[in-house]
This record gives sequence, C-alpha cells and structure tokens, in this order.
Amino acid sequence: MSEETLADNETSNRMSASPSLKRRQFLAGGASLLAISASSTLFGVSADEPAKPIDPTRVPGVSPRPHGERSPFEQQTRLVANSSSTTPLQDLQGVITPASLHFERHHNGVPAIDPSRHRLLVHGRVDRPMIFTVEELKRFPSVSRMAFLECSGNSRDGWDEAQDLTVQQLHGLTSTSEWTGIKLSTLLEAAEIQREATWMLAEGGDAAALARSVPLTDEVLNEAMVCYGQNGEALRPEQGYPLRLLLPGFEGNINVKWLRRLKLGSTPFMTRWETATYTDLMPDGKAYQFSLAMEAKSVITRPSGQQQLRPGFHEIQGLAWSGRGRIAIVEVSVDAGRTWQAARVQEPVLPKCHTRFRLPWRWDGQEAIIQSRCTDDTGYLQPSRDALIKVRGTHSSYHYNGIQSWKIGRDGVVTNVYK
Amino acid sequence: MSEETLADNETSNRMSASPSLKRRQFLAGGASLLAISASSTLFGVSADEPAKPIDPTRVPGVSPRPHGERSPFEQQTRLVANSSSTTPLQDLQGVITPASLHFERHHNGVPAIDPSRHRLLVHGRVDRPMIFTVEELKRFPSVSRMAFLECSGNSRDGWDEAQDLTVQQLHGLTSTSEWTGIKLSTLLEAAEIQREATWMLAEGGDAAALARSVPLTDEVLNEAMVCYGQNGEALRPEQGYPLRLLLPGFEGNINVKWLRRLKLGSTPFMTRWETATYTDLMPDGKAYQFSLAMEAKSVITRPSGQQQLRPGFHEIQGLAWSGRGRIAIVEVSVDAGRTWQAARVQEPVLPKCHTRFRLPWRWDGQEAIIQSRCTDDTGYLQPSRDALIKVRGTHSSYHYNGIQSWKIGRDGVVTNVYK
Repeated sequence: MSEETLADNETSNRMSASPSLKRRQFLAGGASLLAISASSTLFGVSADEPAKPIDPTRVPGVSPRPHGERSPFEQQTRLVANSSSTTPLQDLQGVITPASLHFERHHNGVPAIDPSRHRLLVHGRVDRPMIFTVEELKRFPSVSRMAFLECSGNSRDGWDEAQDLTVQQLHGLTSTSEWTGIKLSTLLEAAEIQREATWMLAEGGDAAALARSVPLTDEVLNEAMVCYGQNGEALRPEQGYPLRLLLPGFEGNINVKWLRRLKLGSTPFMTRWETATYTDLMPDGKAYQFSLAMEAKSVITRPSGQQQLRPGFHEIQGLAWSGRGRIAIVEVSVDAGRTWQAARVQEPVLPKCHTRFRLPWRWDGQEAIIQSRCTDDTGYLQPSRDALIKVRGTHSSYHYNGIQSWKIGRDGVVTNVYK
Repeated sequence: MSEETLADNETSNRMSASPSLKRRQFLAGGASLLAISASSTLFGVSADEPAKPIDPTRVPGVSPRPHGERSPFEQQTRLVANSSSTTPLQDLQGVITPASLHFERHHNGVPAIDPSRHRLLVHGRVDRPMIFTVEELKRFPSVSRMAFLECSGNSRDGWDEAQDLTVQQLHGLTSTSEWTGIKLSTLLEAAEIQREATWMLAEGGDAAALARSVPLTDEVLNEAMVCYGQNGEALRPEQGYPLRLLLPGFEGNINVKWLRRLKLGSTPFMTRWETATYTDLMPDGKAYQFSLAMEAKSVITRPSGQQQLRPGFHEIQGLAWSGRGRIAIVEVSVDAGRTWQAARVQEPVLPKCHTRFRLPWRWDGQEAIIQSRCTDDTGYLQPSRDALIKVRGTHSSYHYNGIQSWKIGRDGVVTNVYK
C-alpha cells in the first residue's frame, strides 16, 4: 500500500462499515501493536474507536451447526417486486450467485411442490409416452454445468432511460449457478422421440402453468438439461423445485420452472407466453417472435448507481455474459467511450456463464463516465444504446443489452446515464 | 428408458422419497394422461396414489422473498461433533458445496466477529508494519478462484479400519467453494516485506487463537489469498468470517480462519499447532512436520456406506481432488480392483478443486466391491490402503488418502471395507 493509497484510505468510506483509520493512527497503531504483538489481549484496540471492542479470543465460540447461516452482519437482499426479485449484483463477488440471492421471476407465485408427488410427463410425437418421478430422473446418467440465467426483461429500464437506479434495479434479473440434472436428449431417447419432432412444449406446474415452445436445434439437443440441482444442492423453490428446464443462453422464461410436461411436436405451439408476451415489437410494428438467445451484455457492478466514491484507487468490477458462448474480451472506458482498455477476466471463462472482469482505476475527483463493453467468441460486440435503438427502436420491453454508462459526479455520487 | 431400466425402477427405492410406480401403472398412467394432456386440472392424479395430490396449479404461489431458503422437503445436514461438522457428500451434486453445508473444524468454537471492529496486523520482517480494516482490504485488487479445503484429519478412520460408516462420516471433512479476496503477495508488497522473510505466522482471532507457520514458497506467493468471500457472498462464520487465509492444496487448519495477524520471519514459528498436533508419526517413531499438501484422493459418494441398492442401472458418482494440482484420471473398479475403467470427469477440471466423476454401472445383484482411484497431473497415483501403510505405518491420525472400498452385499446394503 503506497503512501498515496494510504492517503486514499484516510478519506475512504465507500460502502465502509467501519470508521476509517487516519494515516497517523495507522502508524501509531502499528507502532503500539508492534510492542504488544506477542499478546492477544489488547489486540484490536485502537485509539480512534471510542469503545473497546469485545475480544473474541476471550469468549468460547459457537458450536458446530447442522445447517449454516450467514453472519448477522451480512444483510444483502434481493429487491422484491410483485412477481420478481433481483440479485444484488453490487454486493456479490466472483461468478457464483448464492442460491438464496438468485433472481426470481414468476407469473403466479412460487408453488409449494411435494417432490414425491411431482411427475414429469413426456408425450406427443414420441413412441413411448412416459411419466417420471423425480427419483427416477435422478437415476439417469447426470451432468452438471455452470450457466447464467437472465430474464428477457432484464435491463428494460434502458429502453425508456429510467433515472437514478442501482445496478441491482437495472440489471439484477440475472444470476449464475452450477446446474445438475439429466440431458434433455437422454430423456427424449428414453421416450423414443419421433423423427418429425422438431419443437417441444415445456409446461410448468405453477399456478400460471407457463408454457413455451422450444425449437429442438442441435444446440438445444446438445446442451438442454432437465435440472434438479443448483449449486450442489436441490433446486431452490424460486428456481423451479423440484424440476426445471435449462436452455443455456436462452431467455429466462423458456427455462421452464416446476417442469411437469414436455410435449413433442413438429411446429411451435404458439402459447400466450410467446404471442401475447415475450415478443419484441420492432420499429416497423412487426413483433419478433422466438428471440430466444440473450445477446452479449456487460455491466460494471462497482462503482455503480447510488454508490459514493472518494478520490483515489478503485478496482472497477463487473460481469459480462453471452447467450451465444464465451466472453472473448471485456473493455472498460473511463472517459465516456473515447478510449477503451482491456479488463482482466476471471478464469476459467466458461460458455454462457457470468464472467467477472476487473480493472484498476484511480479516480481523480473529476466528473467521469465509466462504461464496459464485451465481445463474445462469435465476434459480436455489445452495442451502444444508440446502435441498439437504431435497429430495435424503442417499442421493445425485452432483450436490452446496450452499454451501461455510470456517471461519477464531482461529489463522488454515481448515477446511471444514457449516451 | 429401456423396458429393462423400467423394470429396475419397479423395484428401486434407493434414497427414494416417493413410492415407486409399477411398470404397468406407468403405462396406465401414461395412457390416461395422454387422453387429458390438454387439460391441467387432473394432471398429477394417478391411480397408484391413495390420496389425490394437491394441484399446485390451483393455488397461487408464494410471493418473492428478499432472501431465499431451500425447500422444506430438503433436509440434508452436516453431521455435528464437538468441534467439527461434515459435508453430506452422498447428497450433493456437481462440485460446489453450498456454504450452509461446508464442513467445519474449529478448536474453541466459531467466534462472533463484528467486521467493523476486526483488524488484520501485518508485522515482523516488513519495512512497513500495517493494520488493515476489512473494508480497506476489500479496496485492493481482488481475485476469485475455486478451491477445495480438506481437514488433514479427514478420512482418519481409514487408519484403524472403522466399520459401517457413511461417506459423510468417513470423508466429509472436505468441501469446495469459489473464494474471493486479495492475493497474499499484494498484501506483503504493501507492507514492504523484507528479503529475509521466508516464513509467515498466520494467527486466527478465535478463542483458540490458532496459529500456523506458512513457508513462503513460490507456490504460496503465487496462489495464497486473504479471503473475505465464499460462493459469491461474504465468508460464512464457520469458514472464517470476516477474513481467512487460503492456501490452495494445503491441509485445512493452515488456511487460518478469522485471520487477525500475519507475522513475517525467517524460520518456522513452531506453534503448538505444528508440534503438539498436526504432525504425522512415522513407523520409526519420528514425527513428520509441515506435511502441508493434501495428496490426491478420490471417493465414490454414490453408492456409498449404508445406502441400499436394488439390481439394475446405477450411475456411480464421486469426487476426486489433489492438493498438488489438477486431477488427470479417475478410474473405477467394480470387481475389487482386478480391473479399472476410466470414469467421465466433469469439465472444467480445475486445479486443487473437487472434480466430480461419473460412470454408468448395472448391478447384477451379486456381491461386489467398488472402488475409485485418481491420478493427478504430477503423475501421482492414489495408493491402496496397503501401499499407504507400508510407507506411513498406522500411528498417523492425518493425511489418509488410501483407496476407499465399498462392499455391496447380496441384500444390496453398502458397507465400507478395507482390503
């Protein structure tokens, strides 16, 4: 830590839960601690704290517990709306989303399903219609993979330039988990799928009975899974317990949760969820249907909306992902897009998975606009908002992936802006 | 699903929470359901269930919640002892261990630490002794990586051939998480570490004030981290909240939790934790000190101890890991070690991380002994128990990594055996 960054700390309180130490107190504290470094009893006492802290080394700790909980000092939560809740992207680290903070989106609430009563029906254009219990599905050969999910309505505020929002409010309808289940293709082989079957209806067992038509492309047959596991344990109720469809890279709602039925057919089933909703209204008034893949997107999560910076060193951090494959490059601009520099991406970079990027930055206290943009391994570059609107117009509610701009004012306050 | 595997299901109840359907009921159920496949109201009703199941499609579900919980139908837990708890390996999927089920090991309980009061002192052979708050550490450049942790006493029952145990009881003191923090080397550079500093004392802020000597090898300087994050959120209290040392591949206890002090020196500090305990007593009576790396180990988690099999198809599953690097090969034997076949390993295979392996198997109902063995990318092959004991004798309590053998009796009961 250079003297300069120490000076930064002197005035740093960004998201700080603690009174920051003054530089001289650092050294004073350091010096006095040197003298007593062999003793633990006084450790942690420092002049700038009014009350002497409790010394945890003097109190026997808590015994082991069958099921752990987070520290009471950690209270990050999803932001709850009528039928959804958002992941606190600004608070998270790495690429895994804790299951308890995975975003939710449902159309008539989260059903309470007894897994011993739940069944999955596979019928339609198959030679062997079948019903499976959850336990029977768990006995098939299994696979696990990391994948992001994103609601197609994520970032929708970008379309109408909503003001003064946090990254969680703007982009929090995406999360990443390690999913476990069986390959859809295994299940379709078991049911002896017919050659003419090119589409599949997937229906949920919730009170909305949400159903979507899935094109049985090679990509889907290679990657689709019927999942019962999430981050090492069973699916969480909000993510489809006991069974969900996983279509890596496709918009969230087609990854049907509480999955109870798969019907094979030779044409799309045209459910209300792909006609009355979840279509993209183009500038010419036509609705674009089955826009399933989530295109490449990135967003800086720290610093982000409503945070407060002080001048000095900051590590810019964020997430990038693409429904088409791997993230190839993430670039960050700290001058409103005039220049871009490559960010460091967290390895391993996995396909169709959140990828964390990081870039060291020193904020000089002047007004700044910071942005990120990513390129996936198909060569697709995340568009600016203007470029996106030139093609898509502003009638859409879904699939917004324009570059996110954060403005840092001279007062250090971060706000979302559009340019 | 072939008729044959359906026949298996007929009699399958391994870990089954549900009454299994009889084959003819399958088809009857299938047939009746075909007739009503367009209707959801009767869905899930099937002749073989006494009570008509509640139909979740008729009941509005639960509203979004700020912080999720697992389904009430999922009750897997850690097994709790005086000062430790074990991960239910037989119940988990993929490679990530849910933080709530990560194993625990502590020497005077889990301290309750207020992060705003916690400090990390770096002193000794440094030119700039320093004290850091947690928030200050979070402002450094950060890194995240997946890594397993394993208590050096994991699998210790193998030394004395303890009988009739589950995989959780035998091997549950290991878990894998995505860890986030700052590189130890970054911190040591900030404190201006002196050239003579070749060892580091790491001390915890728990009531045991556990302290270990860490050799500052290139491997340690390249990989060691001071962590504040686990699986996307803050460290759990049992894993060292708010700060822990992470030394990927090294025995659990040296990954000091509740980290409050790092003292640089030029020799080992010879704490009681590396003299009175955590040493390996060799056949000649000498104690082997600083045996830090956890050698390659694998274990079949399903089927495993105290489970009950029925004849037919089973996917053999397990975990392999090495403190030396990546798992290169996992082999499984279903004939007591006479022949071995390569298992499929879950990609991506990451260094010093649990690696899940899978192998399809049809149990014919005859007595069988199943085993797994792994080879890491250094070429090291996991030893048989006999080979391990030939070198190590039986005075050790730690670092047992002999091949685990599971015996499946004609009655389908699985027991741990030694051969």
